Amino acid sequence: MINNNAILLISCKDQRGITADITRFIFEHNGNIIDAQQHIDEQSNTFFMRVEWALEGFDLAKDGIAATFSLLAQKYQMDWELSFSQDRPRLAIFVSKHLHCLYDLLIRYKSGRLPCEIPLIISNHPDAKDAAREFDIDFAEFPINPRNKNAQEKRELELLKLKRIDWIVLARYHQILTKDFISHYGNKIINIHHSFLPAFAGKSPYAQAYKKGVKIIGATSHFVTESLDEGPIIEQDIVRINHRHSLMDLVHKGEDLEKIVLNRAVMLALEKKILTYHNKTIVFG
Amino acid sequence: MINNNAILLISCKDQRGITADITRFIFEHNGNIIDAQQHIDEQSNTFFMRVEWALEGFDLAKDGIAATFSLLAQKYQMDWELSFSQDRPRLAIFVSKHLHCLYDLLIRYKSGRLPCEIPLIISNHPDAKDAAREFDIDFAEFPINPRNKNAQEKRELELLKLKRIDWIVLARYHQILTKDFISHYGNKIINIHHSFLPAFAGKSPYAQAYKKGVKIIGATSHFVTESLDEGPIIEQDIVRINHRHSLMDLVHKGEDLEKIVLNRAVMLALEKKILTYHNKTIVFG
Amino acid sequence: MINNNAILLISCKDQRGITADITRFIFEHNGNIIDAQQHIDEQSNTFFMRVEWALEGFDLAKDGIAATFSLLAQKYQMDWELSFSQDRPRLAIFVSKHLHCLYDLLIRYKSGRLPCEIPLIISNHPDAKDAAREFDIDFAEFPINPRNKNAQEKRELELLKLKRIDWIVLARYHQILTKDFISHYGNKIINIHHSFLPAFAGKSPYAQAYKKGVKIIGATSHFVTESLDEGPIIEQDIVRINHRHSLMDLVHKGEDLEKIVLNRAVMLALEKKILTYHNKTIVFG
Amino acid sequence: MINNNAILLISCKDQRGITADITRFIFEHNGNIIDAQQHIDEQSNTFFMRVEWALEGFDLAKDGIAATFSLLAQKYQMDWELSFSQDRPRLAIFVSKHLHCLYDLLIRYKSGRLPCEIPLIISNHPDAKDAAREFDIDFAEFPINPRNKNAQEKRELELLKLKRIDWIVLARYHQILTKDFISHYGNKIINIHHSFLPAFAGKSPYAQAYKKGVKIIGATSHFVTESLDEGPIIEQDIVRINHRHSLMDLVHKGEDLEKIVLNRAVMLALEKKILTYHNKTIVFG
Repeated sequence: MINNNAILLISCKDQRGITADITRFIFEHNGNIIDAQQHIDEQSNTFFMRVEWALEGFDLAKDGIAATFSLLAQKYQMDWELSFSQDRPRLAIFVSKHLHCLYDLLIRYKSGRLPCEIPLIISNHPDAKDAAREFDIDFAEFPINPRNKNAQEKRELELLKLKRIDWIVLARYHQILTKDFISHYGNKIINIHHSFLPAFAGKSPYAQAYKKGVKIIGATSHFVTESLDEGPIIEQDIVRINHRHSLMDLVHKGEDLEKIVLNRAVMLALEKKILTYHNKTIVFG
Repeated sequence: MINNNAILLISCKDQRGITADITRFIFEHNGNIIDAQQHIDEQSNTFFMRVEWALEGFDLAKDGIAATFSLLAQKYQMDWELSFSQDRPRLAIFVSKHLHCLYDLLIRYKSGRLPCEIPLIISNHPDAKDAAREFDIDFAEFPINPRNKNAQEKRELELLKLKRIDWIVLARYHQILTKDFISHYGNKIINIHHSFLPAFAGKSPYAQAYKKGVKIIGATSHFVTESLDEGPIIEQDIVRINHRHSLMDLVHKGEDLEKIVLNRAVMLALEKKILTYHNKTIVFG
Repeated sequence: MINNNAILLISCKDQRGITADITRFIFEHNGNIIDAQQHIDEQSNTFFMRVEWALEGFDLAKDGIAATFSLLAQKYQMDWELSFSQDRPRLAIFVSKHLHCLYDLLIRYKSGRLPCEIPLIISNHPDAKDAAREFDIDFAEFPINPRNKNAQEKRELELLKLKRIDWIVLARYHQILTKDFISHYGNKIINIHHSFLPAFAGKSPYAQAYKKGVKIIGATSHFVTESLDEGPIIEQDIVRINHRHSLMDLVHKGEDLEKIVLNRAVMLALEKKILTYHNKTIVFG
Repeated sequence: MINNNAILLISCKDQRGITADITRFIFEHNGNIIDAQQHIDEQSNTFFMRVEWALEGFDLAKDGIAATFSLLAQKYQMDWELSFSQDRPRLAIFVSKHLHCLYDLLIRYKSGRLPCEIPLIISNHPDAKDAAREFDIDFAEFPINPRNKNAQEKRELELLKLKRIDWIVLARYHQILTKDFISHYGNKIINIHHSFLPAFAGKSPYAQAYKKGVKIIGATSHFVTESLDEGPIIEQDIVRINHRHSLMDLVHKGEDLEKIVLNRAVMLALEKKILTYHNKTIVFG
């Protein structure tokens, strides 16, 4: 059973009284705070907060909260986002030919572990078609080549709009998205890169790691920005390797990492635990 | 340079408005909150909070804060503890014959990494005498045997009182403290146990781990209570081992863990980041 | 493509010349050693070895190797096991109601990652029936209660024999196997226990860990022996937790561990990398 | 008590019979193999081996082993290195102003944990002078500037020769060694770099990591080659961080990593467990 809570993610210039004002707002409307975390970036004097409170007994209607809170938000010139634990964001998965991350997400989804809807899988190849059918999810294939890329992205965006998609997860989608495409889903596109970024960005990170002879490999989930593999990092993890491991061993070990790291990042996003700032993330984990 | 902040650690029954009241208290006296973290234990409906604010500009004198805050504390029947980042708690280290944790703490202390004073080292053996002298710290030897234990502990307590000791760190002190002794330093005695508790409590944990054939060994830092090796766990960490490692290898690998885990626990305590509850810790790390 | 290699796992009393004799045996028949690892247990003066060599050019026929090698084996009174990398052991998965480990193994199987056949899934409940059908694997339900246990195990053993099963994987199978059943599959039954053994053996390990307040949880894969959760440990891994994590969070985080740890153990077994000794494993990883 | 063993590190083109020949060589002279590990690099068809045997009962005198073995070595055109567990290599530590790694090594040395002699500490600054005196080790200060670098390195090399130094450990030595200097100690200079290489090579890796917003920081110990921070990696390890950690927190957490990773690499080198190949290491751990 999902709690019936409201969640505010807030950032603004740090000033005396912000926390007091925010928590008083909730209290005065008879809300009970379930979780509150804040962070101050001292270099830039910026305030970040995540506060979650029970809607039971709260005296503002769900659709009235934003309007009322916006008065307070204006006072502090906040960037803020209000969401509700019972809303289920709609997520599209993009994938190419490596299906392990896709399967991992779908099995979690099917088991009720992901608090979202997944109405759509998009691919530049037909490989994921069977998986989509097994899990009863719409599948759309958009083959991409240098000439048709812009046109195909436009069609994808139309489909995403039609399906009311909130989040995009690139579960090993081996295409670089255009700046224009990304602009429609700012900080709403989550990628998994199969290396410990910033090491081994770009192509064939396992082959790069194998050649370099590192003793540890990693995986990194990050928001997608215009700069390839350089968006704000959400989560990373690693596993030890040694000289006995072949390149194929690295690939297999790495796939387990990819699945776990991507899932953690998706969960953090769905639970509204991430704020971004200066190309970094603040994760209220 | 250490910041000039005040820190409150609070726990009480969860009720609407607590966070709002606490943060308003700070704001109304012109304090700027640097860090605020809270946690609700849903099973028992208990509220926990750590809040830290800058004293610069705060309109209550340091020695007047407690009296003023106590009014609010009474309203919610809080357990609370006020401290100041510039105060340097006084810490005594107890040690027996294994000196690696002692040396590790002393080098950190000497390098200015531990925000405390260490005026005293106590041991049931003479082995640490040289280390104490090197680092210019008083050393007191209290040999313990079953007959003199109570008497020696009394003398230790007198010395601890004389030296105004706030915290005791058992850095591989191989004596069981009596219930009476512990009662004088409730949740102020930090132990390092050289296993991944609750596995391998008691004597010779590395030998137990070696015999069992575990693939990972650990170390655990915890508060000392009457039940041996069963107090609230503050921090744990682990390292992988394999069949090639001898018992002596486990000891050596484990010592590195012990040093790091104990240091982390001591730092958390000194930075007032630990609350205890139901024999567990809440670590606002 | 799987290499065409022979693998010998050997243990015996350590004596001068063993390695020389074994490697000469391979060389004299024109074999090329691909991998050789040995280990001496100094306490008991026992020798362990894993040696793998290419069959290409080897001048003994596959089915003649054992007879020829047995002469050498007798000289040193070896325990030994010969196997071939291209043979695909037949594995049965036992499962109860938690299907995450089952699904994980099946997806790896389907992707060609497990060098084995999985012709059979056995359960005391019907929950895994759909998964079995999806992956086109025979499913047999044997409901167990205290009165029918022995009879059901007999039927299971008959089915296992009929299906020529070599290995049994307990992928969260919540039944204690009888001593008699286990005796048919000595060191051929691999279990996943959802704790960092020997901590939290027995029932509800996540609830035990939650209550204890550990800062790290683990999973352990081990061979099944008569003593519950006490067989030789093959592999363990851990993940950090903190006070924010609910019991359900522990369960979810732990499930990811279980899948990875069980898979690693199964792979080590299938690749003939495990020897057992004194209730411990030697893993030539 | 250190065992009285001989150790051979061998690499050559892989051919049938190498292992058999090497182990027969040991057996025929009545040696008992304590440990043998081998590895084949399949891409380049290269054979690597580490074999260690007890000298007790061995019928060749220590100083006669090399000559006798060289016949076999010639047959296979081996690169090989013979050493003895009771020999204590002589190690010089280079350090600049950060003394934590130096102190860590010295305390291990003093406790008898490092199987080597440390007769010399070299620095471009006077900061480590006191540490050297405390531990009764010669200290030599060679201030370096762009103009005197070559001359100072010459003087260092003379001193290293005079002191018969076998290994150099750069324990946070913030000077780039010249190609000429390195050529005198090929694969005998071990550095600790305070990042997870290849990420954050060069200056201020913690500041780079902080700016990038990684969720994990690391440390890397590697052999020094002409290419800065690009020599063969011996060992790496990591620790998790989050947005709460300041740059100073990263530095402090990283220092604990550096100490452990450097010590592990030094131990592997002293125990003759490392072979290098194609700018990578084979670690027979």
